[in-house]
Amino acid sequence: MSGMYLEDFAPGQTYRSSGSIRIGADRIRAFASEFDPQPFHLDEEAARLSVFGGLAASGWHTAAVTMRLFVESGFRPAGGIVGAGLDELRWPLPVRPGDELHIEAEVLDVRASKSRPSQGLIKVRMTTCNQKGEAVQIFVGNLVVPRRG
Amino acid sequence: MSGMYLEDFAPGQTYRSSGSIRIGADRIRAFASEFDPQPFHLDEEAARLSVFGGLAASGWHTAAVTMRLFVESGFRPAGGIVGAGLDELRWPLPVRPGDELHIEAEVLDVRASKSRPSQGLIKVRMTTCNQKGEAVQIFVGNLVVPRRG
Repeated sequence: MSGMYLEDFAPGQTYRSSGSIRIGADRIRAFASEFDPQPFHLDEEAARLSVFGGLAASGWHTAAVTMRLFVESGFRPAGGIVGAGLDELRWPLPVRPGDELHIEAEVLDVRASKSRPSQGLIKVRMTTCNQKGEAVQIFVGNLVVPRRG
Repeated sequence: MSGMYLEDFAPGQTYRSSGSIRIGADRIRAFASEFDPQPFHLDEEAARLSVFGGLAASGWHTAAVTMRLFVESGFRPAGGIVGAGLDELRWPLPVRPGDELHIEAEVLDVRASKSRPSQGLIKVRMTTCNQKGEAVQIFVGNLVVPRRG
């Protein structure tokens, strides 16, 4: 399998999505209908009266779109992007209809696994930004990456 | 708006989803096609040769289904379920085609906001389990909840 191994990663490396994804009101409502059916993700009028003050995407929709952007970035571990989990995640601003999202990823840490000699873990800070460059989601993820040889 | 306020929550309270959601292979592939188009989420044969050893749902699919189960549980803050973010998230086991997921949520902490007197934050440990009772996802989430009066 082609791609990068643990030995190819180093703290400070950065990756950006090649493009952006626009989140339309129809997609916000479709995702929410299936996974997060709350009024502020489904209905403009109900959303106006909610804490969001207008239609906003589910945070899990933002997370899912972030993954799409990550898969389409130049970040290519051998064996694929396999997440063990996250250290933290924040949604500092809502995603609004028409927002165009892109990602900026930075490798924070690279280490071999103690229990599994064939693999390691890398820590990546993932920032999802809207078209104004404002962060709408930030997480620190832990990814499983194979070692060479 | 009906629902629970900060004053109604206390550490130790638990909530379960009223039912479960079955994750079929078709749904695994559909979610992955849109949000996480990697071979081990899309193709049985490629998945068999991957670190997962067989088709597995995207972790973000599990997270999205977890939200659906949470919205349909008896957990009803006034103003809806509004997440500020997560302290941590782990995917200890893959979700396989045919798995039936349910959730168990426990309130860990309840506190007033220092900066916003009208609201508070509650910390909830959310465990998503399969039909064997095995945890497939665990996170600690921070939710924004309104105060009374």
